[in-house]
Amino acid sequence: MELPVLSSTANPAVRAMRALEDGKARRETGCMRLEGRKLCAEAARELEVTALFVREGRAELYADLIAACAQKGARVWTVSDRVLEYVCAAKTPQDVVLSARIPRLALRGGPLVALDGVQDPGNLGAIVRTCDAAGFGGVVLGPGCADPYAPKSIRATMGSLLRVPMEKVPDLAAWLSARRDEGRALLLTALDGEDFFGRGALPPDPILVIGSEGRGISPAVAACATHRYRLPMAGGAESLNAAVAAGIMIYDLYRVQRQGES
Amino acid sequence: MELPVLSSTANPAVRAMRALEDGKARRETGCMRLEGRKLCAEAARELEVTALFVREGRAELYADLIAACAQKGARVWTVSDRVLEYVCAAKTPQDVVLSARIPRLALRGGPLVALDGVQDPGNLGAIVRTCDAAGFGGVVLGPGCADPYAPKSIRATMGSLLRVPMEKVPDLAAWLSARRDEGRALLLTALDGEDFFGRGALPPDPILVIGSEGRGISPAVAACATHRYRLPMAGGAESLNAAVAAGIMIYDLYRVQRQGES
Repeated sequence: MELPVLSSTANPAVRAMRALEDGKARRETGCMRLEGRKLCAEAARELEVTALFVREGRAELYADLIAACAQKGARVWTVSDRVLEYVCAAKTPQDVVLSARIPRLALRGGPLVALDGVQDPGNLGAIVRTCDAAGFGGVVLGPGCADPYAPKSIRATMGSLLRVPMEKVPDLAAWLSARRDEGRALLLTALDGEDFFGRGALPPDPILVIGSEGRGISPAVAACATHRYRLPMAGGAESLNAAVAAGIMIYDLYRVQRQGES
Repeated sequence: MELPVLSSTANPAVRAMRALEDGKARRETGCMRLEGRKLCAEAARELEVTALFVREGRAELYADLIAACAQKGARVWTVSDRVLEYVCAAKTPQDVVLSARIPRLALRGGPLVALDGVQDPGNLGAIVRTCDAAGFGGVVLGPGCADPYAPKSIRATMGSLLRVPMEKVPDLAAWLSARRDEGRALLLTALDGEDFFGRGALPPDPILVIGSEGRGISPAVAACATHRYRLPMAGGAESLNAAVAAGIMIYDLYRVQRQGES
């Protein structure tokens, strides 16, 4: 297998791959960067791959991935260790990294999660991963959220970003109001809400709103709610990590939904 | 209020505060570093504070904290911005930082969580916070876990580390076996386990074992289990974030326990 080699960090293809670290380059190109064997293999099946970098000397280990990407019309290079470190901004980068077009999956039926300013990419990614596990229909992102296609978010989703529809909306309160007018339940947490575990039956396909780590849910979004809940707290903690709180509620909705189906 | 000023990063008190970044210094001194108004105020109530640094020019804003720490015999300084940045290794450090003796709280009654190599300090801290919220009796840490008193773990616990008993054990499998022999249930997750939400009644005060992010639960620990469960997965994700999975199970145990009490 003879592949062209990139060993200079000044090469335009190298610079373009590195630039996908930044939201501006992702918006301009519509592409994101994915790292590691598992995620790249999934991307080669699911996405339009535009470029693939493989660590020099390792091409034979990734023959299937290289073939799959090449077949999709992606440009494939082997790259030096130094280029890989430069591109991935990691001390110990993986062997493979690719750029692919950001998927545009339409929200599906089923419950949804709406994020109101969730700023931590690790939390955002973990929530997307939980939505994937529970079979939710997607994630809606209001202003002020972390970018789900930033490297840290992508890492935290563990591949779920390839399966979970995500939609950014410019005005979350307006978007939620429209869903409420269609008859959907909008659930949010509030310190003075009712016990989440004591809730009665809900209309199908509720939308669970998760607020920002520091400020919680914004007033305009809070005003849209049809149901206000709190998670019970037995001990001294006043709140939970945003991804943990989301996970508890997502899975309890899923648990009750499964009971209804069985 | 006239306080001595520290403006050199070479000062031994400054170096000692900074050194608490490292596990070695924490082990040698038995102290940890806490940052920010809220956490420092809690520490001044609950812990033995050994030193307090306040940003120069802000002492009047922290008069209560300074008085509380001084009353406990802590040494109190105002420090320059540069010293604060040096000590906290943060670009925008908080105004106050203190060192305090690491609390030794004995495990309480109630359910426990045991961590088998949870390496991410953010996950570890979030789990401690969730245990606090659910009123669990404490967290047991086996070998290979992140240090709960490292700055990143402390930040993620959001103060819960002052309330939740934590015990490091050198041989987690041996410790768990002894608890099992006392009649306690040891729950762990396994891909071939039973549906967690379909579980029957459990003996009181179960111990929930959480495995490492990458490798899951080690074979020696897995062999101790009395109950093996899996969280159902509807979608494409194969697993959940460790802190999210722990949170879902901790809160479902808590939910059922509350039902039993009401």
